Amino acid sequence: MAPSLDVDELVTRAREGQPRAVARLLSLVEDAHPRLRDVVAALTPHTGHARVIGLTGPPGVGKSTSTSMLLGALRQEGKRVGVLAIDPSSPFSGGALLGDRIRMTEHATDEGVFIRSMATRGHLGGLAWATPQSVRVLDAAGFDVILIETVGVGQSEVDVVKLADTTMVLLAPGMGDGIQAAKAGVLEIADVFVVNKADRDGADVTIRDLKNMISLSRREIRGPSWRQPIVRTVASEGVGADALLLALREHAEWLSAHGELARRRQARARAEVEAIALRRLRTELAGLQGGEALETLVKRVVDRDIDPYAAADELVAGLS
Amino acid sequence: MAPSLDVDELVTRAREGQPRAVARLLSLVEDAHPRLRDVVAALTPHTGHARVIGLTGPPGVGKSTSTSMLLGALRQEGKRVGVLAIDPSSPFSGGALLGDRIRMTEHATDEGVFIRSMATRGHLGGLAWATPQSVRVLDAAGFDVILIETVGVGQSEVDVVKLADTTMVLLAPGMGDGIQAAKAGVLEIADVFVVNKADRDGADVTIRDLKNMISLSRREIRGPSWRQPIVRTVASEGVGADALLLALREHAEWLSAHGELARRRQARARAEVEAIALRRLRTELAGLQGGEALETLVKRVVDRDIDPYAAADELVAGLS
Repeated sequence: MAPSLDVDELVTRAREGQPRAVARLLSLVEDAHPRLRDVVAALTPHTGHARVIGLTGPPGVGKSTSTSMLLGALRQEGKRVGVLAIDPSSPFSGGALLGDRIRMTEHATDEGVFIRSMATRGHLGGLAWATPQSVRVLDAAGFDVILIETVGVGQSEVDVVKLADTTMVLLAPGMGDGIQAAKAGVLEIADVFVVNKADRDGADVTIRDLKNMISLSRREIRGPSWRQPIVRTVASEGVGADALLLALREHAEWLSAHGELARRRQARARAEVEAIALRRLRTELAGLQGGEALETLVKRVVDRDIDPYAAADELVAGLS
Repeated sequence: MAPSLDVDELVTRAREGQPRAVARLLSLVEDAHPRLRDVVAALTPHTGHARVIGLTGPPGVGKSTSTSMLLGALRQEGKRVGVLAIDPSSPFSGGALLGDRIRMTEHATDEGVFIRSMATRGHLGGLAWATPQSVRVLDAAGFDVILIETVGVGQSEVDVVKLADTTMVLLAPGMGDGIQAAKAGVLEIADVFVVNKADRDGADVTIRDLKNMISLSRREIRGPSWRQPIVRTVASEGVGADALLLALREHAEWLSAHGELARRRQARARAEVEAIALRRLRTELAGLQGGEALETLVKRVVDRDIDPYAAADELVAGLS
């Protein structure tokens, strides 16, 4: 039996900046704790302050190094920063098998920084469910900026990073297919492009290609147009941090000036409410008749006795 | 007004091998046509024959070249092969911006091959919804083997490729972070490993690392253990095709001998039924009170008037 959960005290301690309380709250989200809804209800009045920045790009472009550079720059401005690392290859998430996790240790003892790995596959309810609620935890805990780092290839990862106020897409020279994949998939979600490793051969070609693609692409309608800037960085040496901060600040101003911030936060809340409702319905479907309803219907589908739509109909009918 | 849809005739023509009928059926799935359920009901009695093979790996390992090689080898055995290309960077899916789409044209005029791109983001209901039903279309249309090609980084892509009877994971030497990401994410879903570009420097190191990781990893319990083989290929030159076919054949025999094929097909049907049911419920939630219910609740969440759980409760209550 776990010790009883004092929700109000936990939220108070998280808001006082105690890392263990923040970690506990995030675990409650990820484990879908039975009292999570009480937790979220207690957190909600304290939210709405944090700026949410998504950071994505294909493997190997230097996402973790760039996150680290951005973390450092934001800390110099006195901002408290939370990081949700969803990229399974990120050293933040413990997924890296090489040595670059060491680079993160400089932030490990900084009380203004909180880093959380969400890389485990098979979160109960999935990333769409856990991420907005994790953002809510960090927001209520008083972090000024929340960075969501995710690998920019998969659909669910793109969906997650779209929850941000501002989305940064990282590229690097000489990635070949990787760059092509990233460009095809994430061009339209980028608010700010970063070409990292900009001291390498091919950086100019990458930037030129990117400029061409931006001008050729049918731009998503986003109200008054925002011209996606391209920032050059060498994150491993801290080069480009100021230009990146400037681009992010300009985007923040644009968001506020054009009512776009409200629109994006509405979209984030919609995704959160839908995900909670669907997770609950999924649990109900799976549990009908102690789970027998689903398994019996599935067997009949495999045996071609009924088609999957008829099975889904019967299943949904069992809800009411 | 679109011409009326003669479902039975369309299914008959698809089963006769008419590519346009197959393409039409796949479009009905992707567009969530109102009469899709009639289509699926008409297809279902004809399914259960095809072997489903998933092919995944990080960008740049040569997935499309490998798919092409495997296609050629299966065609030499007289098999009819359908390809569902989910990787947005794949030349199959039209996402490639370089020249290698040309490589695919050798299959373009082969009536025993059908290639379908599913790379568009934002399928109605998502990949989890569209993929199993697309498999059903190709299965009913009489294809012996269905290859699902997807980039092996995102969570939803991994979920999709898990629907296969056999999952091939491709790696290549010298990919650095990409390989690490792939290994961390897809090690446990691989039935067969392929190290492509095996003539390159570093292939031996990659294979040695892979062997170490296989022996170190806590193996997922899959009934009687299957020892994941590692096949070396140079797909661009057709090297390793025979070894790959052999490994796939051995896995097929193992699946049948250990009751695992039935278990996987049960899992695939479960995913399909759940996805159809949840998609229907999602549509119902979004449409409550002409969409007003959701939007009103979301506004209240943004205003911190209610928390997202309370909003989800109210939303779900509206269903009954």
